[in-house]
Amino acid sequence: MTTTGIKVSVMYPNKAGARFDHEYYKNSHMPLVKSKMGDALKYYTVDRGLAGGTPGEAPTYVAMCHLFCDSVASFQAAFGPHAQTILADIPNYTDLQPVLQISEVVVGKP
Amino acid sequence: MTTTGIKVSVMYPNKAGARFDHEYYKNSHMPLVKSKMGDALKYYTVDRGLAGGTPGEAPTYVAMCHLFCDSVASFQAAFGPHAQTILADIPNYTDLQPVLQISEVVVGKP
Repeated sequence: MTTTGIKVSVMYPNKAGARFDHEYYKNSHMPLVKSKMGDALKYYTVDRGLAGGTPGEAPTYVAMCHLFCDSVASFQAAFGPHAQTILADIPNYTDLQPVLQISEVVVGKP
Repeated sequence: MTTTGIKVSVMYPNKAGARFDHEYYKNSHMPLVKSKMGDALKYYTVDRGLAGGTPGEAPTYVAMCHLFCDSVASFQAAFGPHAQTILADIPNYTDLQPVLQISEVVVGKP
């Protein structure tokens, strides 16, 4: 199986009454992550949850970001030294606890 | 907020003992989805879950795909007529029940 690298998905579970500032996340937090990780972070994407799979159903995640790197090792080397700084910024946009997943990119964007 | 379209994420929760044929998913199921949805499906990506956020932790999802379309309406128009055919193919690669989420793409791949 050919891989086009890995992605780290940071997923914020949608909870009633939770706070999430999408503007801050897009305009401040994610640029902070990029500035700290440098070129090891090839690019990132950001999602805002709209709906679940059935009519009227809320999305599972209120927001997600996906960090694309060449390998788990390159992600860890670039993220690790700045983890504290990056994690300390989370309360500025949410009171939610994100779920993390590392995936192999089996099919990437063409 | 500028949007670059929507994505439909199909996420297969990782369960002990569950069956998931990643090769079939990549080489047969996803091309079937693309052939049925046509140009309304701008492109798709496929992930294979590797790990969770802490050492030794299993990934939340064993696999995911993300279907990128211009709008929820264009997704529904292209997917709806073929939903039965596409869903009928699921048992060919897994016994898992996927979780669906529709998201606005706030930041897409550059």
